[in-house]
Amino acid sequence: MKEEELVSYLKSLFPKIGNDVVDFTVNNIPIVSTDSFVMGVHFGKYFTPYLMGYKSVVGALSDIAASGGKPKYLIVALGLPTGDIKLVKEIYKGMNKVCSSYEVEVIGGDMVKSTSLFLTLTVIGETKVVVSRSGAKIGDLICVTGDLGSVGLELLKSSDKLNFTSKLFQPFPRISEGIILANYVSSMIDISDGFLKDLCQILTTSSVGAKVYTKNLPIKKETKEMAETMNVDVTKIALNSGEEYELLFTIGKKEINFIKGKINFTKVGEIISSSQVVDENNLPLKVEGYDHFA
Amino acid sequence: MKEEELVSYLKSLFPKIGNDVVDFTVNNIPIVSTDSFVMGVHFGKYFTPYLMGYKSVVGALSDIAASGGKPKYLIVALGLPTGDIKLVKEIYKGMNKVCSSYEVEVIGGDMVKSTSLFLTLTVIGETKVVVSRSGAKIGDLICVTGDLGSVGLELLKSSDKLNFTSKLFQPFPRISEGIILANYVSSMIDISDGFLKDLCQILTTSSVGAKVYTKNLPIKKETKEMAETMNVDVTKIALNSGEEYELLFTIGKKEINFIKGKINFTKVGEIISSSQVVDENNLPLKVEGYDHFA
Repeated sequence: MKEEELVSYLKSLFPKIGNDVVDFTVNNIPIVSTDSFVMGVHFGKYFTPYLMGYKSVVGALSDIAASGGKPKYLIVALGLPTGDIKLVKEIYKGMNKVCSSYEVEVIGGDMVKSTSLFLTLTVIGETKVVVSRSGAKIGDLICVTGDLGSVGLELLKSSDKLNFTSKLFQPFPRISEGIILANYVSSMIDISDGFLKDLCQILTTSSVGAKVYTKNLPIKKETKEMAETMNVDVTKIALNSGEEYELLFTIGKKEINFIKGKINFTKVGEIISSSQVVDENNLPLKVEGYDHFA
Repeated sequence: MKEEELVSYLKSLFPKIGNDVVDFTVNNIPIVSTDSFVMGVHFGKYFTPYLMGYKSVVGALSDIAASGGKPKYLIVALGLPTGDIKLVKEIYKGMNKVCSSYEVEVIGGDMVKSTSLFLTLTVIGETKVVVSRSGAKIGDLICVTGDLGSVGLELLKSSDKLNFTSKLFQPFPRISEGIILANYVSSMIDISDGFLKDLCQILTTSSVGAKVYTKNLPIKKETKEMAETMNVDVTKIALNSGEEYELLFTIGKKEINFIKGKINFTKVGEIISSSQVVDENNLPLKVEGYDHFA
């Protein structure tokens, strides 16, 4: 594969590629986030190159959503074991699908020879208010957008029952929700490692604990039914399911009134002074999320 | 290795890490650049983790220098085959050395499990004037900063004669030169793939050709002497030596007077209307630079 050949293909897909200049709305704050994805580590064997491109961009945009920002630019670094032009085109097609849905422009990147297939995505966005992970206060409510557990459940399915249009393969970043929430929440994170594990990130940096009403976790009826036929504990799945890309946030009891009706969310707990995470019966909840270096 | 353990080490080295907010000087233009480096592909076996960190940051900053910009922020994505905390610390120490020399702040990144050791560095900088690769005009002079060939020559040395403080192992980005040049040049690029190959990037995007005065190539006396004892053609080395990180630029005959005395550079050729690259005897010069997917 000639580098030049691919560059001209990419230019047809992303007209702004190679344009290293970025631009921001006056008075908005530029924010940036980077995520790496490695074939075989972050993507199982059922991920086609298209779906790898698709899902990695969602993961990258989701970080900006968690900061309350609007993503604007994407920079793509690609490590390739072979010069397989078809593979690269498919990855970029998947990326393009998500980028065009959210008006994100691919402005540049790098492509290198590598023993593993990897992607590093850097997203540059902007926001009016920067939301941190460290602002959770005692008495704040813990809430989550959308629903939980379907991704973890899909991972447990046998290969012949996989649904390639499911949230496992084609998730979505909660960008519009994040922009609204930014004005009211005390802390926010996106669920990439699992509800409990990501909640702990907020708790640790905020020096607080949490009581989680496990009965309130937003689990779809079909997720519950499927879990039953598969004979797995759906609550455990919902607590630990990674790559859900829902927004997990804490919000004051007054502020919560301002988001009602504006976005789809569920109250699932409360911030407490203890450094523990407990359920409604005050029993400790154990993190079973993914440790990157376990 | 616990992720949290490493995160706190990195916070001691880079106080702004985890701060995803970037800030720009009023009226300056934000620019961004990404580079990936893979162990075994971009770094030979004599590179220690410290030198890998060091050199990869120089390579990333050099891109910003070629745009005439001042680098401000660095975002580091690291792919690791093992959870070797000592290795990671050494890589970051090498990075820190370069970052502190050029007042670049590491503000964030990602760390993932990977089958290959890779680094993706995204640099965000700012500039008053954006320099492109496409502005070379017929009659412009071709110039280069510093000297050429020493990196390529070092690569040819036997292992017991390697100099770990040489430009091969510890190069430097031409940032202050780039900032000055930005006001006067018609096009600019940094030499990462080799003088001839990078010159061709300018020529292709500018739709022009070049005559190169190979006798004028800036080659240090000690490089020439060393080449002689090693019995290699020093001109060929200087034309194709990659990772020199010198700035290669084209500039009008009037404008060149404004940079004399301000920076150290050498006139090495002239832009011509032909689409070829020829030497002083009008013989075609063949690119022998590195093709990423050859």
